[in-house]
Amino acid sequence: MIQNFLDIKIKTNGQRLYDFTNQVLDWINQNNFTNGILNLSILHTSASLIVQENADPDVRSDLINFFDNLVPMNKDLYKHSVEGKDDMPAHIKSALTNNQISLSIKNGNLMLGKWQALYLFEHRILSHTRIITCHFIGNV
Amino acid sequence: MIQNFLDIKIKTNGQRLYDFTNQVLDWINQNNFTNGILNLSILHTSASLIVQENADPDVRSDLINFFDNLVPMNKDLYKHSVEGKDDMPAHIKSALTNNQISLSIKNGNLMLGKWQALYLFEHRILSHTRIITCHFIGNV
Amino acid sequence: MIQNFLDIKIKTNGQRLYDFTNQVLDWINQNNFTNGILNLSILHTSASLIVQENADPDVRSDLINFFDNLVPMNKDLYKHSVEGKDDMPAHIKSALTNNQISLSIKNGNLMLGKWQALYLFEHRILSHTRIITCHFIGNV
Repeated sequence: MIQNFLDIKIKTNGQRLYDFTNQVLDWINQNNFTNGILNLSILHTSASLIVQENADPDVRSDLINFFDNLVPMNKDLYKHSVEGKDDMPAHIKSALTNNQISLSIKNGNLMLGKWQALYLFEHRILSHTRIITCHFIGNV
Repeated sequence: MIQNFLDIKIKTNGQRLYDFTNQVLDWINQNNFTNGILNLSILHTSASLIVQENADPDVRSDLINFFDNLVPMNKDLYKHSVEGKDDMPAHIKSALTNNQISLSIKNGNLMLGKWQALYLFEHRILSHTRIITCHFIGNV
Repeated sequence: MIQNFLDIKIKTNGQRLYDFTNQVLDWINQNNFTNGILNLSILHTSASLIVQENADPDVRSDLINFFDNLVPMNKDLYKHSVEGKDDMPAHIKSALTNNQISLSIKNGNLMLGKWQALYLFEHRILSHTRIITCHFIGNV
């Protein structure tokens, strides 16, 4: 068995879902990973990783609206407000979603459903550079 | 080290928690897995995987009620409504819970607590056939 | 590749976030783990594992307040109330966060961001002894 690492950098530009599925698929194909676990971690606590529906863009915008209503950007609600009105809500949204996802690779195929894609879910308003650590453990 | 895969199919029949712990335990026992990681992924974005209390059935019904109140099936709230009033809420509930769980196997035992079980959490009203990909990496 | 297991016991004393990052780092260093996956599981359904901001303690207290408001300790809301007003909310908070986290170790370093730490998130009011199963699979 082998192990392999890749850092994916994503420059975000506001609260949106950023699809990085193809960057992961390219890495799998270039390295001929056949069977193994792919562990994805985001090294930040104000953005998340999620697997979501990849067809209708309205799904992503409804998702963002839901989280914005659930965790309002209202400084009166939080003690932690020095980093901006969107920072504490970002930490909470991060806790409600995921910092980390483990996916299986089987016969060279990433085990995602037909309607699933991998997204970075940015919770901050301003532009950020986000790093996702990709780690493969398995066979080539 | 070896790797092994299994697809578990679950026919769901409405918004409930479906216990699939025994199907996983049977697979572990039949293959004599001793130590390793078991990665479980659901290849859908309108149903989830969760580890929950396995004793009082009221816990599961309270859980379903909580999520239904938090994410109402009200078409006025969402742009994505073409697939039914329960579809966008299902995607949101999926984001709030998990698409994927990794569990440890130690000395042939699946590392779950005494009061824990593995559930498929169905968020759609109508019947669906759900596939859970089980992937073992470790020793026999 | 090797595998190694450790149980971390944490005595909790009310609804707080308990940092156990150093216990994990010590274990990694003592065993010279270089590259691999570290799977952490909590064997309970009324406490969670989360990766969160480690700098401003207000972030943790805002997080606890948010979850307490989202999932009120009001027995009228739940059928499952025999174990106390905080038990069903604890199960729901557990479903909204994580029972399990997989982290990568690369060149002997646990892949956490500069502002990230590992926390046990206790949802019960009274004191509990919680067990976190740590499982390493990889190279020394």
